Amino acid sequence: MITLFFDYKSKIPLYEQLYNHIKKSIVNMELKANEKLPSKRKLANHLKISVITVESAYNQLMAEGYIKSKPKSGFYVLPYIRLNPVSKEKQVSIIEKKEDQKEYLVDFRTNQVDSLHFPYNEISKIERDVLLDEYSKHINHVDYLGYYDLRERITEFLFEYRGIKTNPESIVIGSGSEYLISLLILLLGRDLVYGVEEPGYLKNYRLYLDYGANALTVGLDESGIDINQLNHVDVVHVTPSHQFPKGIVTTIARRIELLNWANENENHYIIEDDYDSEFRFNGNPIPAMKGLDKADKVIYMNSFSKSIAPSLRLSFMVLPKKLMNKYHKSFSYFTCSVPMITQMIIEKFMKTKGYEKHLNRMKILYKNKRDYLISLFENSNLKEKIEIIGEEAGLHFLIKINTDIKLEKLIERAKNLGVRVNGINEYCLEKQKVQTEKIIVLGYSHLENKDFEIAIKLLEKAWVDIL
Amino acid sequence: MITLFFDYKSKIPLYEQLYNHIKKSIVNMELKANEKLPSKRKLANHLKISVITVESAYNQLMAEGYIKSKPKSGFYVLPYIRLNPVSKEKQVSIIEKKEDQKEYLVDFRTNQVDSLHFPYNEISKIERDVLLDEYSKHINHVDYLGYYDLRERITEFLFEYRGIKTNPESIVIGSGSEYLISLLILLLGRDLVYGVEEPGYLKNYRLYLDYGANALTVGLDESGIDINQLNHVDVVHVTPSHQFPKGIVTTIARRIELLNWANENENHYIIEDDYDSEFRFNGNPIPAMKGLDKADKVIYMNSFSKSIAPSLRLSFMVLPKKLMNKYHKSFSYFTCSVPMITQMIIEKFMKTKGYEKHLNRMKILYKNKRDYLISLFENSNLKEKIEIIGEEAGLHFLIKINTDIKLEKLIERAKNLGVRVNGINEYCLEKQKVQTEKIIVLGYSHLENKDFEIAIKLLEKAWVDIL
Repeated sequence: MITLFFDYKSKIPLYEQLYNHIKKSIVNMELKANEKLPSKRKLANHLKISVITVESAYNQLMAEGYIKSKPKSGFYVLPYIRLNPVSKEKQVSIIEKKEDQKEYLVDFRTNQVDSLHFPYNEISKIERDVLLDEYSKHINHVDYLGYYDLRERITEFLFEYRGIKTNPESIVIGSGSEYLISLLILLLGRDLVYGVEEPGYLKNYRLYLDYGANALTVGLDESGIDINQLNHVDVVHVTPSHQFPKGIVTTIARRIELLNWANENENHYIIEDDYDSEFRFNGNPIPAMKGLDKADKVIYMNSFSKSIAPSLRLSFMVLPKKLMNKYHKSFSYFTCSVPMITQMIIEKFMKTKGYEKHLNRMKILYKNKRDYLISLFENSNLKEKIEIIGEEAGLHFLIKINTDIKLEKLIERAKNLGVRVNGINEYCLEKQKVQTEKIIVLGYSHLENKDFEIAIKLLEKAWVDIL
Repeated sequence: MITLFFDYKSKIPLYEQLYNHIKKSIVNMELKANEKLPSKRKLANHLKISVITVESAYNQLMAEGYIKSKPKSGFYVLPYIRLNPVSKEKQVSIIEKKEDQKEYLVDFRTNQVDSLHFPYNEISKIERDVLLDEYSKHINHVDYLGYYDLRERITEFLFEYRGIKTNPESIVIGSGSEYLISLLILLLGRDLVYGVEEPGYLKNYRLYLDYGANALTVGLDESGIDINQLNHVDVVHVTPSHQFPKGIVTTIARRIELLNWANENENHYIIEDDYDSEFRFNGNPIPAMKGLDKADKVIYMNSFSKSIAPSLRLSFMVLPKKLMNKYHKSFSYFTCSVPMITQMIIEKFMKTKGYEKHLNRMKILYKNKRDYLISLFENSNLKEKIEIIGEEAGLHFLIKINTDIKLEKLIERAKNLGVRVNGINEYCLEKQKVQTEKIIVLGYSHLENKDFEIAIKLLEKAWVDIL
């Protein structure tokens, strides 16, 4: 018979004390497999507790599979198995990859937005309206292409701002371009060769490889990506509005060459990554290639990372009809990866023209920041030695330094004084390829005028003597 | 000389009219490649407009790559290329995959939550606090593993509710289990064989295959997944707390057998999908397998889809140290796919114990719904012919119908009267495999008592005569 001394002062209820006792007896194999347990009534009498207490203990033991009940017979111990020991040498500890922990006085990193002028109050108000009004209808479901109304707003935006005629049925919403690229590889196939720009956003090169596809880098000339290097490429991933990082606008002739290249082979596609096209400071926006895409060979991709916030994780793409049909056929079981509430908020932000106003405000803000930073360079002791390039658009520009000093040395000296700048070689697979070009990339969007003033003084100090 | 008649009444500015005219002349090849354009001053004089107007037009044409300027020489037309024609037969139209459009009076679909008792006001208040307080620091960046503080809260939750001792450094946050599975395939490899339960959540089976891995289905017995069918499996994906859809709790002995199986081969891993473990109505929660995982071979996976909302797209996993090291080494360039604001809101919801209270409220709510629905079945004309199973936990249970009538016929008759129920065969790869079992799956969490009353009357009408 099962015997234990209950601790009546304990916070652990009696049934749990009994459950623990029997469980321990099974784990220690004092109670053997197939052994019959006393009936609930018998055990209750024996332990001077209620039948319900025994029943609760037995039920929990049954639920976890320690015992089972046989109808009209009683409760039996189920066979228990021991956990095999783990050999010491198999135990590992986590080796964390530390990010660059250095604190910079001024950090000209790219892919940032201004955090002071984010529309906190407006978004908060929209969120409240959405949560209390429409959200209850959308708690349980997100369309696999994304919220239809947001796809409508994006359609309107693309027509007005980017010269693209499309429709909500051609748009797929996803969490970031990384996610969209993983979808594209599913749609296009892992057996194709994906070409990415070099210098360029090399994360994409790694993504294509990591997701099991083939990838090549393709060089640039002054008109955009080098069309002569596409012989072994099936799908080319380009940034025609504002090449990242070099700032080149792909010429109209090169765009048409690319479109003709895509049209000549069924496997060929162009991924048009329009990542910061919202911010063109001089003249009108450069229309997207997708607007010229009569053969339906351009996959247009953009996000709200630059126009709202990188941590929003909200991207979208316009799929050619053929690929959309494949998506419907093969991947309609997917769920859209972006929270419905996020999609609803941005939809409302666009619908109420808040987004348009925000873009206009930010464009002026960034133009002023850019102008001030450029003016500081032009009035600095460095002015004779530098040339500013790619400043017409986007949230970064480049500085070409006329010197024989190694780029790494220039960057190192800036770093030692607390200023982080990226060399163009960091956007290249084979760093040596561009070692002759002394170009640095300056992301300025998240910084303030006082940061620029500090930075210029420090860069003068770092470079003037050695240039 | 370029000549055009300006429309002075038009809203299109003069520079844009000039730009359009020159662009058209280049596209029509009236202006030939390398042809020299008149100087800005000459053209301004000729057209009786300001030099600045000509300059704006020339600048836009240069930006888009129609013309170029040669220093100390002037502006020249760049070679223009024609877009190749698109053959008619290549044009396709979108064939949309229509979802089941039928409107049901009562739809017992699974994977839903109650939308009336979502904490709308509480979440809205937290969102406001987060947006106006901490968010500005997190606009530009999400840690690739996810927001650290949320990983802390999840660590605490897993210890208190699931008997798992882990740490924030072992947790990865992602948008939905689909996304986490795609990450796991990157970490574990496409060359492994992934075993999923059958009957089970077959989307996962398709996911493994679509992401290029090998997948097999593995049958169940009364103790959980059939350990004897794992010979060709490397990684097994199981739902031990509450098998989906059959509701089986994997017994303690089977859990240990699985852990021993995982420990015997370096490639072996267990993915413990703990999808609705928060809702156990009778007795204590069943502790997670991960709590017994001394050899660090269990990948624990869960989401807030059942406990908050499916459209939240917020999931997480606990990675074994060996896999976490691989993640740090190879995928630290990834960005977490969940919006930072979502992560911050849920972190605060957990920290202020709002989440715990919400879970307790929902547990009572769902228990009452379940009890009422079961009582209706037990008092119906169907009671002699049915057996209720798997009702101890989760947001669905099953009804086994004792009849010779085909399962498809039962479902069809219910559908015709406006009630949707899923047959267990819909969770099987080879539908015939379980045709002998007349089991239907009822997701009840999103429905109200009045829906249950309507449904029971209709199910009686649909089935009583033929059973």
